[in-house]
Amino acid sequence: MTSSVDTLTVQPTSTDVPRRVYRFGGGHTDGDRSLKALLGGKGANLAEMSRLGLPVPPGFTVTTEACAAFYDAGREWPGGLDEEVEAGVAHLEAATGRRFGDARRPLLVSVRSGAAVSMPGMMDTVLDLGLNDRTVEALARAYGDERSAWDAYRRFLDMFGDVVMGVPHAGFETALQGLKDERGVTDDTDLDVVALRDLVDRYKAVYRRHTGHMPPEDPREQLRFAIDAVFGSWRSDRAITYRRINHIRGLVGTAVNVQAMVFGNHGEGSGTGVLFSRHPSTGAPGLFGEYLANAQGEDVVAGIRTPQPLSALRDAMPEVYVDLEAAVTRLERHYGDMQDIEFTVEEGTLYLLQTRNGKRTGAAAVKIATDLVREGVVTKDRAVRDLVEPGHVDQLLHPRFATDGDHGATPIAKGLPASPGAAVGKAVFSAEAAEAAKAAGDAVILVRVETSPEDVGGMHAAEGILTSRGGMTSHAAVVARGWGKPCVAGCDGIVVNEERRHVTTGTVTVREGDWLSLDGTTGEVLLGRAELVPPGLSDDVTEVLAWADEFRRLGVRANADQPADAEQARAFGAEGIGLCRTEHMFFEDGRIEAVREMILAETEHDRRAALDALLPLQRGDFRALFEAMDGLPVTVRLLDPPLHEFLPHDDAGVEALADRLGVSVGTVRRRVAALREQNPMLGHRGCRLGVTHPEITETQARALFEAAVEAAEAGADVRPEVMVPLVGTVAEFRHQRAVVDEVAAAVFAERGRTVPYLVGTMIEVPRAALLADAIAEEAAFFSFGTNDLTQMTFGYSRDDAGTGFLPQYLDAKILPDDPFQTIDQEGVGLLVRNAAALGRNANPALHLGVCGEHGGDPESVAFFHEAGLDYVSCSPFRVPVARLAAAQAALRDSPDTPEA
Amino acid sequence: MTSSVDTLTVQPTSTDVPRRVYRFGGGHTDGDRSLKALLGGKGANLAEMSRLGLPVPPGFTVTTEACAAFYDAGREWPGGLDEEVEAGVAHLEAATGRRFGDARRPLLVSVRSGAAVSMPGMMDTVLDLGLNDRTVEALARAYGDERSAWDAYRRFLDMFGDVVMGVPHAGFETALQGLKDERGVTDDTDLDVVALRDLVDRYKAVYRRHTGHMPPEDPREQLRFAIDAVFGSWRSDRAITYRRINHIRGLVGTAVNVQAMVFGNHGEGSGTGVLFSRHPSTGAPGLFGEYLANAQGEDVVAGIRTPQPLSALRDAMPEVYVDLEAAVTRLERHYGDMQDIEFTVEEGTLYLLQTRNGKRTGAAAVKIATDLVREGVVTKDRAVRDLVEPGHVDQLLHPRFATDGDHGATPIAKGLPASPGAAVGKAVFSAEAAEAAKAAGDAVILVRVETSPEDVGGMHAAEGILTSRGGMTSHAAVVARGWGKPCVAGCDGIVVNEERRHVTTGTVTVREGDWLSLDGTTGEVLLGRAELVPPGLSDDVTEVLAWADEFRRLGVRANADQPADAEQARAFGAEGIGLCRTEHMFFEDGRIEAVREMILAETEHDRRAALDALLPLQRGDFRALFEAMDGLPVTVRLLDPPLHEFLPHDDAGVEALADRLGVSVGTVRRRVAALREQNPMLGHRGCRLGVTHPEITETQARALFEAAVEAAEAGADVRPEVMVPLVGTVAEFRHQRAVVDEVAAAVFAERGRTVPYLVGTMIEVPRAALLADAIAEEAAFFSFGTNDLTQMTFGYSRDDAGTGFLPQYLDAKILPDDPFQTIDQEGVGLLVRNAAALGRNANPALHLGVCGEHGGDPESVAFFHEAGLDYVSCSPFRVPVARLAAAQAALRDSPDTPEA
Repeated sequence: MTSSVDTLTVQPTSTDVPRRVYRFGGGHTDGDRSLKALLGGKGANLAEMSRLGLPVPPGFTVTTEACAAFYDAGREWPGGLDEEVEAGVAHLEAATGRRFGDARRPLLVSVRSGAAVSMPGMMDTVLDLGLNDRTVEALARAYGDERSAWDAYRRFLDMFGDVVMGVPHAGFETALQGLKDERGVTDDTDLDVVALRDLVDRYKAVYRRHTGHMPPEDPREQLRFAIDAVFGSWRSDRAITYRRINHIRGLVGTAVNVQAMVFGNHGEGSGTGVLFSRHPSTGAPGLFGEYLANAQGEDVVAGIRTPQPLSALRDAMPEVYVDLEAAVTRLERHYGDMQDIEFTVEEGTLYLLQTRNGKRTGAAAVKIATDLVREGVVTKDRAVRDLVEPGHVDQLLHPRFATDGDHGATPIAKGLPASPGAAVGKAVFSAEAAEAAKAAGDAVILVRVETSPEDVGGMHAAEGILTSRGGMTSHAAVVARGWGKPCVAGCDGIVVNEERRHVTTGTVTVREGDWLSLDGTTGEVLLGRAELVPPGLSDDVTEVLAWADEFRRLGVRANADQPADAEQARAFGAEGIGLCRTEHMFFEDGRIEAVREMILAETEHDRRAALDALLPLQRGDFRALFEAMDGLPVTVRLLDPPLHEFLPHDDAGVEALADRLGVSVGTVRRRVAALREQNPMLGHRGCRLGVTHPEITETQARALFEAAVEAAEAGADVRPEVMVPLVGTVAEFRHQRAVVDEVAAAVFAERGRTVPYLVGTMIEVPRAALLADAIAEEAAFFSFGTNDLTQMTFGYSRDDAGTGFLPQYLDAKILPDDPFQTIDQEGVGLLVRNAAALGRNANPALHLGVCGEHGGDPESVAFFHEAGLDYVSCSPFRVPVARLAAAQAALRDSPDTPEA
Repeated sequence: MTSSVDTLTVQPTSTDVPRRVYRFGGGHTDGDRSLKALLGGKGANLAEMSRLGLPVPPGFTVTTEACAAFYDAGREWPGGLDEEVEAGVAHLEAATGRRFGDARRPLLVSVRSGAAVSMPGMMDTVLDLGLNDRTVEALARAYGDERSAWDAYRRFLDMFGDVVMGVPHAGFETALQGLKDERGVTDDTDLDVVALRDLVDRYKAVYRRHTGHMPPEDPREQLRFAIDAVFGSWRSDRAITYRRINHIRGLVGTAVNVQAMVFGNHGEGSGTGVLFSRHPSTGAPGLFGEYLANAQGEDVVAGIRTPQPLSALRDAMPEVYVDLEAAVTRLERHYGDMQDIEFTVEEGTLYLLQTRNGKRTGAAAVKIATDLVREGVVTKDRAVRDLVEPGHVDQLLHPRFATDGDHGATPIAKGLPASPGAAVGKAVFSAEAAEAAKAAGDAVILVRVETSPEDVGGMHAAEGILTSRGGMTSHAAVVARGWGKPCVAGCDGIVVNEERRHVTTGTVTVREGDWLSLDGTTGEVLLGRAELVPPGLSDDVTEVLAWADEFRRLGVRANADQPADAEQARAFGAEGIGLCRTEHMFFEDGRIEAVREMILAETEHDRRAALDALLPLQRGDFRALFEAMDGLPVTVRLLDPPLHEFLPHDDAGVEALADRLGVSVGTVRRRVAALREQNPMLGHRGCRLGVTHPEITETQARALFEAAVEAAEAGADVRPEVMVPLVGTVAEFRHQRAVVDEVAAAVFAERGRTVPYLVGTMIEVPRAALLADAIAEEAAFFSFGTNDLTQMTFGYSRDDAGTGFLPQYLDAKILPDDPFQTIDQEGVGLLVRNAAALGRNANPALHLGVCGEHGGDPESVAFFHEAGLDYVSCSPFRVPVARLAAAQAALRDSPDTPEA
């Protein structure tokens, strides 16, 4: 890919040091899109567009490795970088015919960050760098527009001060407002050139007050400060938070893009815009974007001015629009994906400033993927691997408001449908409040005038986001879509008072803690707690998932305890039940009493009597489950939780139980207390119950095998797999398997019909993972219970983790991820890998699966694929996500899959 | 060793099958003592004694492998065994000139079990086998003593019925009592031959009533049944329990010894005795034993008749006594150990029936070991390796009654000092009650008329044992000495009523639950709860331990939190402190309030204020500790337990705390509740506290380093090692080490003095063991916290284990041992081994130790030696035990250690 690179004029200072500055545009392009890790996404795409001959203002990219070297050197520029940047500036000057600080034709540049992974709004940008007291005059002369030049200058001082030097933006705002008040004007555009010259002086005073010196006049000094600032922003708190939340790892730093300025604010023949090559919410073909005449790009992105639709450009400059359409089509076919493009028109000339794969909703992702395959732009495997993310599929499985009749909430306002899906939560008015509420287990809607990068933590914590300002490409909208989180933006019918923590429509006031419902698909805002309904799968999703099934190796089963869940799971493509938690059946109506009788029985005889009452109920459940999963395996876990969980803990419950059992309240209380444990998670549960009370296992096995025989008699193809939980020693498994086998033999003899079945074990105790070879000699399958395995391997109580040290550990980067969400590959994963290898070695026929919640987490699914497991099992609503994630893992594992 | 075996006449039936019958005596001895695993201890020693030319009645031994083959064949005799046993009988007949069933010179034999490890009273014995209606007459004629012959016959029927056929002994007793009542006699000896003939008929009737047929007349049939019964007893419940309690593993079965009878009950020129070659309680040289004239051996062992001292034999038959002394001396020198010998004198002729290494008290063991070394019988390494068990040393560290003045209990009776040491507990009258009380956490004294093998579970559970019958070699005495458990036996001043659960001296009645104190060294029985004092080390122990120190490689440190403990540990030979739990300091007077203030602080500022109050107190403790351990390392663990443990849980405590803090009771209650966790063991504790509240670590580190500097200034050689608990990720350790290093640097700078120190970590979370290489790169040492590592690797809560499923798991052999007492080598041990290897590989300078309670368990110490650790750390009173265990591990590891 680099064989066609132009002759180098920028040389590293030593042959040992890799090149740190890559040019683009002006006929000298060093990089291309394959160098994304080195040049960042933006830099690589600027190089690629230059190579395609598209109109890109010339510039150069300082590499991500230079950023890493900056940190390695203790936040100093590495040796030789100065010279390379100078050579880059020389390229710019040659390509534009302008010079830094030139009194006649000054070179002005933008300085932008750009990491290998897009991080919207995370990094700081400086425009018009190169302006100073001298070049501003030259600029005015060159363009014949003094006011624009001074307006650019004062904006530059604000931006440079704020972004590069840390001068609070508010200081500049106050100066601006003060001037406007003095002049009696309300709009910035009403300030004339005299006022703007005055404003520049006032901005310099603000700058000096804060930094102790005047802004640098030398453009090279400005550039150096700006590059420093971009490097520095890589390790800003907000960047770190963003990367953590988005699981972005393995990047060495950010690149810096220095590019000749073009001006969208040179009158009505100029303008700036952003667009998507297809609709980012629906995926519908055709350009979709916004255009702001006579404006610079930052005005659009920051959401400060509300832009017009793209048709405004077509109406104003049809020939420019045709050029734009052609360029967009070319880029989309070239990249094989929907593009998100920034452009500027400077006095009738089109410039492309950026292209990248566009963020999109789940619905758009599947629509675009299927359209691009149908259009012949990409192959199926490419579409599955790259065009639809597991999160997209997940979004489509998010709930919507109940549509039939009243859903329980009242519409009070309508804004832009910035990110689809429905959300319900209590109103909060700050990111901090959102995070605190989330930590306390509350669902919240974050309501803000507009959001900024400082808010990302709270945005992530919220169920949905509502802003009164900003458009479809505002910070709130872009970030929310990326996460698939519902967002209503630019809702100008409401007034948000963040200070007093309320929002009002004029007639209705919503205070902190009041319930709000948002529909990000329609833009509706509702007062109250709307009822949500689960979604189904569209034809497009079904098609993408069918393709995914062609490519994946991992099986996908579902965790389901009830026949209805099983049916749902099957509809979502589950290939069996990987975990049926029998205890969930116990909580149903009329059963819990018998369960309690069983638990408090003092003799085996009494316990058997209570179990006998439960048997027909469990048998009925199992039969329905077997029939729902006709032809597919159904893995049933024997009773797992500590018995104490089933007991009443309030006086009324205790009294009712005493009444039922015909014993005193004191007796019940005593027996309940006797079952209490200091650390129930490490207590008398799992197979420890079955070993000490074999009659419990016997009854469960009997219910299961009787149900299996009955279902088989009724014509179903029944494939029960009995799973022993919490095994830590071979002896436990052997004990429980003997009980199960004995009951199976008895039932088959009684009924005169045999059903094939397997007996296997969960691997969820570290010891079992360590001794997996010995256990595998006795077991037909392993199912990794990664929830418990994570608890015990880390020594973390999941019940306590949410409010304990874990959030602080994540904040402080002691842990990269919540290990209960994404499997800890280093520690827990090592146990899984070793146990799988030991187990397979001892018993080549061993089936290996996972039934912890990690089975529905895409990153974890990729790990399980790589570890060689046979299947994952997850909640029914994660099954489609797991199918896609499994296919992507397989495709990434073998990049040479033949194209469809 | 087998090169001198006589020409075989007993041949296996096939060359593939190993020989299953080994002869001894009568000039044909096939085995020797090296074949203990195959012949059992008793059989091997009978063969060895025969080889030494000592007077042993001839016989043969059926091997332990034959027993294993019996079980393999489904409790059937393996093919060919019949023929081999028949050949053994032929050997016996040839050697004695008698024949089975012969009307003139009938052969009578004893049948005894004998495993490779001594199991006193566990196995069943049958005497006089070969008696029937015909041979009894011949016996009477041959000996000219009809009464003896018929008495032997009725005893045989009782024994055969009871032991072999399961006829309850009580049935025979009832028949005997009925006859005595009819005849108006009280003593068995008052029954004449007519009465005894009658009794034989009545016994046959009892036998038939229970079994449905008459006793077998054919001696070969009797023998076959008896051998079956011995085989069967190997898997009796009591044998299994005994092996479990005594950690006896790896044996394939029991051997069966069939030996010609000799008769100690042929009048006053006959008798039987048992002896130890040295005193089993004190170790004093000289024969110590008991003799019963005109009796069979079982009379002595069973404790049915109270025997006379051995001097009775010397007085009655001095020349026999001289022979006996010579034989005993020869055996002691030959075996290099104190011997426990059974002998019989038949009409003036001495026969040795058994020799084995004698069980002894801890005091006797060290006395005998040092004496045998001084006498030149054994070398020091042999003495350390074989003559003193860790349990012996432990016994010597058992408490005694306070000797100065009143110890709080009143003497009520005096019995035989059957097993030394003092014990205090509540009286119980059955094994079941003892086990139940133990499980409930109560200390008990088991009081019985006499004990039987069925009682071993309860005996083990009791602190001490008191019996009203039986001598120094009764079941109770032998078993108790083996365990080092205090026992007073043959206390005939008391009447035990097991049924009504009380014991009375006539004036005092002690009921179940009343406190009793026993002194097994003096035989005293006291009413009430006597005060106990800890013991010191005798010169003999000190000498043995000094030898041990020459041979061991493992270092031994102590777990000590207070200066007094540290001094005690040092006196016991500790080479440093391996674990100082700083939190124990917190519970001292006047500190807990400051600790509570610290915990409930809502701001870092308030927390620091409370910590500042604690700092000088901790500093003082640390300084005293450093001075006590001058020149030795002191490992200080940072705060470890969940903070909730320090908080008041009762109303009074909460009120006092609210008062002190100047907040409402409700506030305190709320904050206490907020700190409560579902599973505190897996919660916010260990370094998780230090990471989330670095000021806690800072304060502890400051107290420690200030103390170290002060102690160093006062002239002490201070070697602090700071230990970070519960590390699961490298990041945690790095965080805490940085805090500690920073404080150290600050303190050293402030004080102008530097003290060398190490910062290391506990390895107690499975994940840390898995990632030990990465952690070792940052840590100076690992200390395996095997308590927590066991909890998390098994998923067992130690707090709940005692009353939960664990006792049932041990009973059901799901677990071979309590993993909290003896390390689980397979699982937890694998993590230790791997972590040690990974750690050493990553950091060759890494120190490795253990500070869980396993550090004082001999079997675990052997494992840690083998795993290559540098030291173990245990409670001060286990230090001597650990020193010996470490030496034994080293000696067993390298059997070629040069002799001293």
